Amino acid sequence: MTSSRSNSVHNSVDRDEDRDEYFDTTVRLRNPNLELLDQDILYHLGLGSESHDLVEMFGDIKFVCMAGTPKRCESFANYIMKELGHKLPTGTRLQDICEYSYRYSMYKVGPVLSISHGMGIPSVGILLHEVIKLMYHAKVQDPIFFRIGTSGGVGLEGGTVVISEEAVDGLLRPFLDLPVLGKIVSRPALLDKKLQRELKLLAEPDDLFPTLIGKTMCTTDFYEGQSRMDGAFCDFTETERMDHLQTLKDNGVVNIEMESLAFAALTHHAGIKAAVVCVTLLDRLKSDQIHYPKEVLEEWQQRPQALVCRYIKKYLLKKGKILNNVDTSCCGAVCLKSPRRFKLVQQESESYD
Amino acid sequence: MTSSRSNSVHNSVDRDEDRDEYFDTTVRLRNPNLELLDQDILYHLGLGSESHDLVEMFGDIKFVCMAGTPKRCESFANYIMKELGHKLPTGTRLQDICEYSYRYSMYKVGPVLSISHGMGIPSVGILLHEVIKLMYHAKVQDPIFFRIGTSGGVGLEGGTVVISEEAVDGLLRPFLDLPVLGKIVSRPALLDKKLQRELKLLAEPDDLFPTLIGKTMCTTDFYEGQSRMDGAFCDFTETERMDHLQTLKDNGVVNIEMESLAFAALTHHAGIKAAVVCVTLLDRLKSDQIHYPKEVLEEWQQRPQALVCRYIKKYLLKKGKILNNVDTSCCGAVCLKSPRRFKLVQQESESYD
Repeated sequence: MTSSRSNSVHNSVDRDEDRDEYFDTTVRLRNPNLELLDQDILYHLGLGSESHDLVEMFGDIKFVCMAGTPKRCESFANYIMKELGHKLPTGTRLQDICEYSYRYSMYKVGPVLSISHGMGIPSVGILLHEVIKLMYHAKVQDPIFFRIGTSGGVGLEGGTVVISEEAVDGLLRPFLDLPVLGKIVSRPALLDKKLQRELKLLAEPDDLFPTLIGKTMCTTDFYEGQSRMDGAFCDFTETERMDHLQTLKDNGVVNIEMESLAFAALTHHAGIKAAVVCVTLLDRLKSDQIHYPKEVLEEWQQRPQALVCRYIKKYLLKKGKILNNVDTSCCGAVCLKSPRRFKLVQQESESYD
Repeated sequence: MTSSRSNSVHNSVDRDEDRDEYFDTTVRLRNPNLELLDQDILYHLGLGSESHDLVEMFGDIKFVCMAGTPKRCESFANYIMKELGHKLPTGTRLQDICEYSYRYSMYKVGPVLSISHGMGIPSVGILLHEVIKLMYHAKVQDPIFFRIGTSGGVGLEGGTVVISEEAVDGLLRPFLDLPVLGKIVSRPALLDKKLQRELKLLAEPDDLFPTLIGKTMCTTDFYEGQSRMDGAFCDFTETERMDHLQTLKDNGVVNIEMESLAFAALTHHAGIKAAVVCVTLLDRLKSDQIHYPKEVLEEWQQRPQALVCRYIKKYLLKKGKILNNVDTSCCGAVCLKSPRRFKLVQQESESYD
């Protein structure tokens, strides 16, 4: 059963690769049973197919951007709002749609959904099952998913932006292995090649850092699983560690993180065009611990956000969904005529008790 | 290398089982390299061995209680504070120690640490590496770790409290498999038997729900991995699903969740006495989706908290660390003489603009 299933998976890989299935497809919900439910509860999002009008709420979504922490997903939402010149009604502000799920955070800025996925494959996996179902219930056409994250570099300086070519596990296998009914189901962790090239082309020539396409290793542990020697346990030597990291490099692995395998495998299985864009925070060939100041790390974390934002802007401009040279002073719920005078007003207002 | 390592693991299991290694041991930090670091940064907690005086901050910790969400860990902190009659200085309140890590939440109530571990093995694994190192840096003696959670029951009604006998993976193997330097390291997912019996004895005769010891299955996915038919994907039939759940039951599995395997394996590897206490939210033999009202589910989630709280109170009473019949009206930062008059004062105060 397993082998036959994983064979069929392999066949579908080849088919997908030939046909490039990602064009003009809608979200493939591979579960007929959902039609039979009187309501579908998205537990970890705090949403339901009958309790909420999901078409009304999410029908206009085109891009789903995921980041690890609630903070990073909120900052991306505010960043994209500014970049798109997206307006909110006066007296309103962005609200965490999943506030009462107490698990994930979700912000909506026009056609962009910014969601936090937590740490590790199971956390991002639960989220993907529910967001894919959300896209289905909301009747969203051809959404594009991005994971925007941080990673350890393998032979790359900190601050490098990596667009994942594919994801591999801790044994360098490009598959997500999942025990289902007591048998391992292997799903290929593939990502859309065309989207990778399009993103790469958006790296600006005057960027002071490299942006490249490479293989990403996805681990189930941050310490021993990423050959770090500063965890609670360590059974290997510095030499064994270096040999292994060199082996990863020789096999084309350029960075290491903890979510890409599930992100690639589940979006691919659903026929959703997806990309993983991560910045490296250090070169693992040189050290385990990060030694850069907070400001530097924060600037680095904005780099993958900026690249994905460029893609989204280009797409919306092409579709005539936003104007060129949007007035970024006029986004959110505040509309400014004069930023200079606005600053003065703020100062004045703050200076009174 | 793997086989020899996993052999040695097996030997150590037997040794541990014979000796019951959990008595009078301190936290076993199996990593000599940490001594060589000029500072050890606990990234995901936002703490450091040289930036913070960890002995001063955490030296008095005896119990580490983990729950999934920040909300549940905060509510447990407030609950245990009331139960222990723990006083805070007037004008102070509990603060999230990891507030600026943006990943986990951590509250300290005297000798009790209440921490959120997020969802899944990688998330609880990262936390355990750092909390075990924290116990080591803080020179904590013989801490006891608890995971307090929710789970799906297998042949058990919702509201049943399960004390995990051991944790098994999706293939019913009682080991945590972790790829380290390209090879699988298997660690036994064992939990202290004596602690399980002690907890079972604390189930009160007038409890209106059963409390039992049984095998817990830990999966890497909430939907297909737990044979749910309401995920984004489902490749099996209702009959196959029922057959598998029945197989789990026949193999002694009484509940299913997503963290116990790493929790058991990593605490066992560190020689830390630990227990997993979860309430069941539904009987998976009957359905996939939860159909109980919020109030019922909230009362159920307090059941494992209450059991662990009884253990902590009993321990502290025995050590003379707290008084019997503590005045629970006098905990937190408020000290009441008359709860009745306090209510009146509150009402009065609220009724004025």
